[in-house]
Amino acid sequence: MDSDRDPTTLAPEELRGYLEQADPKDIQAFCESGHTAALAEALSALEADQAWEALKRVPPTPRAEIFCRLDESLQVDITEKLSRGDLARLLSDMPADDRVDLLRRLPEEESERVLPAMAQAEREDVRRLSSYAEGTAGSIMTSEYVTLRPELTAEEAIARLRREAPNKETIYHAYILGEDRRLVGVISLKDLIVARASERVGDLMHREVIRARATDDQEAAARMLQRYDLLALPVVDEREAIVGIITHDDAIDVITQENTEDFEKLMAITGAHETGHYLRTPAWVHFRNRVGWVVSLAVVGLLSGTIIQRYESSLERLLILALFMPMLADTGGNTGSQAATVVVRALALGQVKARDIFRVLFKEAGVALMLCGILGLTSFGRVMLLSRAEQVPEEFTLWMVGLTIAVALSLQVVSATLLGALLPMLAARLKLDPALVASPALTTAVDITGLLIYFNTARVMLGL
Amino acid sequence: MDSDRDPTTLAPEELRGYLEQADPKDIQAFCESGHTAALAEALSALEADQAWEALKRVPPTPRAEIFCRLDESLQVDITEKLSRGDLARLLSDMPADDRVDLLRRLPEEESERVLPAMAQAEREDVRRLSSYAEGTAGSIMTSEYVTLRPELTAEEAIARLRREAPNKETIYHAYILGEDRRLVGVISLKDLIVARASERVGDLMHREVIRARATDDQEAAARMLQRYDLLALPVVDEREAIVGIITHDDAIDVITQENTEDFEKLMAITGAHETGHYLRTPAWVHFRNRVGWVVSLAVVGLLSGTIIQRYESSLERLLILALFMPMLADTGGNTGSQAATVVVRALALGQVKARDIFRVLFKEAGVALMLCGILGLTSFGRVMLLSRAEQVPEEFTLWMVGLTIAVALSLQVVSATLLGALLPMLAARLKLDPALVASPALTTAVDITGLLIYFNTARVMLGL
Repeated sequence: MDSDRDPTTLAPEELRGYLEQADPKDIQAFCESGHTAALAEALSALEADQAWEALKRVPPTPRAEIFCRLDESLQVDITEKLSRGDLARLLSDMPADDRVDLLRRLPEEESERVLPAMAQAEREDVRRLSSYAEGTAGSIMTSEYVTLRPELTAEEAIARLRREAPNKETIYHAYILGEDRRLVGVISLKDLIVARASERVGDLMHREVIRARATDDQEAAARMLQRYDLLALPVVDEREAIVGIITHDDAIDVITQENTEDFEKLMAITGAHETGHYLRTPAWVHFRNRVGWVVSLAVVGLLSGTIIQRYESSLERLLILALFMPMLADTGGNTGSQAATVVVRALALGQVKARDIFRVLFKEAGVALMLCGILGLTSFGRVMLLSRAEQVPEEFTLWMVGLTIAVALSLQVVSATLLGALLPMLAARLKLDPALVASPALTTAVDITGLLIYFNTARVMLGL
Repeated sequence: MDSDRDPTTLAPEELRGYLEQADPKDIQAFCESGHTAALAEALSALEADQAWEALKRVPPTPRAEIFCRLDESLQVDITEKLSRGDLARLLSDMPADDRVDLLRRLPEEESERVLPAMAQAEREDVRRLSSYAEGTAGSIMTSEYVTLRPELTAEEAIARLRREAPNKETIYHAYILGEDRRLVGVISLKDLIVARASERVGDLMHREVIRARATDDQEAAARMLQRYDLLALPVVDEREAIVGIITHDDAIDVITQENTEDFEKLMAITGAHETGHYLRTPAWVHFRNRVGWVVSLAVVGLLSGTIIQRYESSLERLLILALFMPMLADTGGNTGSQAATVVVRALALGQVKARDIFRVLFKEAGVALMLCGILGLTSFGRVMLLSRAEQVPEEFTLWMVGLTIAVALSLQVVSATLLGALLPMLAARLKLDPALVASPALTTAVDITGLLIYFNTARVMLGL
């Protein structure tokens, strides 16, 4: 084998070949030739039993690390092939947070089968970590952090970090506890290394600790870690006692996952967003995630038909109005979606709070007025230049028709933009997810208000 | 002042009060009472001269840190108030990557005014870092990393890290260089601390270094750091010589910025996405970012009118067809946008590559067939149950009309879904940004294809 290969890519076909020849030496050499993330990706292309066949050849610590990087569904499939002992050993080697995630996803009888085979302390840890609801800061934290007493010297503290290094996710920050495990300070390994050996942790530590509550939203906690450029964010309970930490890598993953969720909500796609690898998700699951909104919106969309039917006689008298209907609906949908998108994003990034509702509406009103100026002129020009006078019955003039269409379009743009901004702001105020006011729902709503605006403008201005 | 305040929030009104009373002690106490990120947020609510008035009271190192956290536009405004000496000093205290970012944004005469006042080494560093194009890995890296020679012992290496700590962004990883600054290994402070004092760096280091090229896309580099759970990603030039590192906090910021960009592109919003704080961006800039696509799409939308006009006589013979037109257009837009969204996201997350085009189309075809089954049945049911026979002229039967509408809707759903998946895949294959095939553009395209499908289905099935 080529020893100089790129550690970031491994070919699963090559591994499959070694597995078929059942050559333990080649399998092992392959597994050791790349980074654990690359090997995890190669294994993801295999069936569960083949993947385990390869994983068996890897020493326990990297094995657990590779396993944690596998797709969630593949993880579950592999656990089904394992004996109770093998599974308990694998779980013991995993980081505390990944262990709990896996146990949560296993069928209940499976996790009950394996728990008694784990050490008492680990069982306790699993019980404690899994007591936090999905989506909270508590559910993504790990219990593998270092704590120090304030009376230690810098030298003693470094010795302690050194001893604990093999069992902790990070030793670059340590947390200083007072009575009842209350979090009173934080110190970095950098601070300790730079300090004189005899200085006390209690004198060196930072007392203003940025921290999250275990019940906080996981995205808020991840954004806090991002805002303060932290490597790890301590998590406390309601008595300010430390219960875990969130590490920077888990925070990036949460941010990515929440972004995917927002994208999908904007397009009215429901379902368990965190599990979805696009190609590995079966078509019927994609279908199930999308069908609800599409059918509901189609049913609501039939309302448009009913409205058009009501104004049938107006259309019969002035058929030129029908030709501009789709443009009016599309433009309303586009401007409304744009406003909704920027507002949803500004809310997600914390640039805008629910109380800023009037500032947002004022801003969007300005944008809408400029947009409707341009669009009104464009549509008036289109009617005047490209329509023939014979399309307009004698009782109307072409320029009155053009003006009507321009006014209706302007009203539509202003109302759609304001509605697009208002709905996510209201959702935020009601503590709902702003992205729920999804773009297709908004488009459908704006279609219907657009028709009402259009026909009523025509009624008032043309006396239809 | 309350010394027990929450370090994560500071009230700008309070600071403004102290500044108006021009009380240096209160100003300083306020500035020291919170985390630098919180103080930066409080300062962001002030005018440039007031913000500098407060920043002056803060010691140089935290001052530079706070300054880096300010909005880009406020940073530029403040620099305009500073003397050449003050600005040069501030720039010297800033991390190398933030320094280059600021100099890039200053007017040319401003940066030429300040460069001569900086130390030679810093000027060189600025020149080197600013030579990489925006959007590349090189443009977000910093030059403040630690390098070690392989022959050092662990003890000597730790002593070196300790000496360099004050001037480096991170000392938790050090890079080992061979000839010509070629990157040959990486070692973590954890590895060094756990090792015996006499072990050599060259024996302890990891030789498989995950690294980016300076010319790589910045998002690809950030995703690599995420994939491998790194604290920092080294960046090399074409000769494999190290030129900088990307730190985890900058990687999160890049991922956030690229997500915002994707959101806005999906909604056809153009412009310099990285600068936009929603409320601080003037309405006319929002307008300018949105107007292009909205007007273009409105003009294209007028095409729908032309198509309807062509089939005017069909509509006159069977007006019931008009009532289902909006629903058909909306449903096509919704299903197409959903497909585009999941495909764009899967491409962004690297779950799908450009070469997977047929696997994606196959998957979406499956989803589309299920969706059109449900939607076809719904629309057929709606026609049969809720329409009155008198809406249908004698030469047609209600059930043939229902069937026509169901078939047209099914064709529309299948073609819109496949188009929604195909366009981003084609964009990816042509090395364009998949999010460019934005949802409003797709919606408008699908409106037009939908009308053609609708009227042609009616022509074939009903002989209109």
